[in-house]
Amino acid sequence: MTQPLPITTLINGRPADTISVHDRGLNYGDGLFETMAVVNGTIRRFDLHLDRLALGCSRLGIECPPRELLMQECSSLSRSATRAVLKLIVTRGIGNRGYASPRDTRPTRIVSLHDWPKDPEHWHPTGVAVRWCTTTLSRQPLLAGIKHLNRLEYILGRSEWTDPEIAEGLLRDTDGNVICGTMTNIFLMRSGELTTPTLDHCGVAGTTRHTVLALAKELEIPTIEAPVTASDVETADEVFLTNAVIDIWPVNRIGNRALARGQIAHRLQKLLMRLR
Amino acid sequence: MTQPLPITTLINGRPADTISVHDRGLNYGDGLFETMAVVNGTIRRFDLHLDRLALGCSRLGIECPPRELLMQECSSLSRSATRAVLKLIVTRGIGNRGYASPRDTRPTRIVSLHDWPKDPEHWHPTGVAVRWCTTTLSRQPLLAGIKHLNRLEYILGRSEWTDPEIAEGLLRDTDGNVICGTMTNIFLMRSGELTTPTLDHCGVAGTTRHTVLALAKELEIPTIEAPVTASDVETADEVFLTNAVIDIWPVNRIGNRALARGQIAHRLQKLLMRLR
Repeated sequence: MTQPLPITTLINGRPADTISVHDRGLNYGDGLFETMAVVNGTIRRFDLHLDRLALGCSRLGIECPPRELLMQECSSLSRSATRAVLKLIVTRGIGNRGYASPRDTRPTRIVSLHDWPKDPEHWHPTGVAVRWCTTTLSRQPLLAGIKHLNRLEYILGRSEWTDPEIAEGLLRDTDGNVICGTMTNIFLMRSGELTTPTLDHCGVAGTTRHTVLALAKELEIPTIEAPVTASDVETADEVFLTNAVIDIWPVNRIGNRALARGQIAHRLQKLLMRLR
Repeated sequence: MTQPLPITTLINGRPADTISVHDRGLNYGDGLFETMAVVNGTIRRFDLHLDRLALGCSRLGIECPPRELLMQECSSLSRSATRAVLKLIVTRGIGNRGYASPRDTRPTRIVSLHDWPKDPEHWHPTGVAVRWCTTTLSRQPLLAGIKHLNRLEYILGRSEWTDPEIAEGLLRDTDGNVICGTMTNIFLMRSGELTTPTLDHCGVAGTTRHTVLALAKELEIPTIEAPVTASDVETADEVFLTNAVIDIWPVNRIGNRALARGQIAHRLQKLLMRLR
C-alpha cells in the first residue's frame, strides 16, 4: 500500500502554498497545467508533458520557463515518492486588472505533489463503467489540444454524476462529435482499426494518447485520428480510456449497455507498464 | 485628479493578499467575478452585479455567499474611495486535485480595490477607435452571459493589438456573429432601433448593458436583442460600447473606417451619470 503523502508544493522554486490574488492564473485561468504520474521517484513520460506545456505556452503567448528549471523543480519534489501525482501549473504571472498581458511580469511556476487516486485497482483488468454526459464542449481551435486552466466545461461534465461505480463521463462537442472523457482520452477498435477522436476543435491531446498511438503503430495496428460519433463508440469492438495517471482503463459498460471486451487494451497496458 | 490607491484586499473577510494554491479558482478557473465602479464611496449598480454573480453561482453549482456578507465586505473596502474599481471574485473554494467538486469546501471570497483606469477622459465625448479581432469566441450556452473565470478567449483577443489609440477590439463568435468587445458590450442604432447582440451562446451580459436597455425603453427608443453581423456594425447609424467602469464610449472609427456620430450615446451617457 502507498502511504498517504503530505501535499508538498514549490512556488517559483521555493516551498510555499499560497499565490498572489493578483496572479492571472486565478483571475482569468491564464495559464497551463500538467498532471504527471510519479513511480519510484521517476516522473513518467516527463518529456511529453514538458513538450505539451511548451506548446501551450507558445499558443497563449506565455514565455515557457526553462526546461532545465522545470525538470529540477519537479524532480526535487518527486524523487523520494514511491507512487504519487505531480502537478505543474504555469501561469502568465502577476498582473494588474484587465485582460491585456502585462509586459513586466514573469510566469508563475507551481509544482505540487498529491496522493495517488484511490480508484479500484481491478478497473485495470476488468474495465470500467462510463456514462454519456449531457454537457457539451464548445469548439475553439485556438485552445484545442493544450491543457490550459479554463476547465469549467469539464467541471460541469464531471458534476453530472456522483455514483462511485461510474469511472468516467464521455463528452461530445456542441456538434455532437465524441471528443473525450472528463479526464481521459478515448480509443475505439472498429474493424481492426484503432480510432481516437481528432482534437483540432476541442479536447486535450493527452501524453498517454500520444504514446498509445505510437505503440499501436509499433504493433502494426492501423491507427486513425478521425471524427467519432456516439454510435461509433456504442458499436465498437472495444473501447478504452487513457490518461497519464491511470494509463489505460478498458470500458466494459456505457450507461446500461454492456460493451464487448477486446484484447488491444490489455496488450497496450502491458507495453505501457514497461515504459517509463 | 484621483490619487493612486494602494491595492487593498479582503479574502473571506480578512485582510490578506494570497490564496491557497489548491483553490479551484486557480486550478480550473472554477468561479466568477464582478468588476464594479466605485464613485464617492458608493458601488454603482451594486444590485445588478450581485444578481449576475448569483446567477453565475447557480449555473456553476457554487453556493453563492450571502448577499449581506458580500455587501458588507465590498462596502468596507470601497466606502472611503473617491473613484476606484472594486473587483469581487467568488471561487468554488479549496479542493483536492480533480474536476469533481469537493463536498466539504466553502466558496472563497476575494474583494480587491484597484486604481481607476487611465483611459483618456475625452473618449467619452469624442468617441473611441476600435478594431476587429481575429480571435473568435466559442459557442457554449452553459457559460454564456455569466462572468466566469475562464477568460482565455478574451485574453487572446486583447493580445491582438498594443496601439494605445485603439480602445477596444470587437469579437465575433465562431459562426461570425458579432458578440461584444474584449471588455465591453456593443450597441448599434439602425433605422431608429437600438440593437445589441443576443448573448445566449457567448459573451457576458453586462450590468451597464442591462441598464442601457432599460433606459432606452424609458426614452421610448425601440430596443432589440438580436444576432448582429460585422456588416450591421459597419453600416450602423451609431455604435457605442458599454461596461461598468467606462459607462459608455461612442465608437468613431472601426479599423480605417470612420463611423457616423450619433446622439443616442450622448443622451444615454447623461442619464447613466445621474444614476448611481
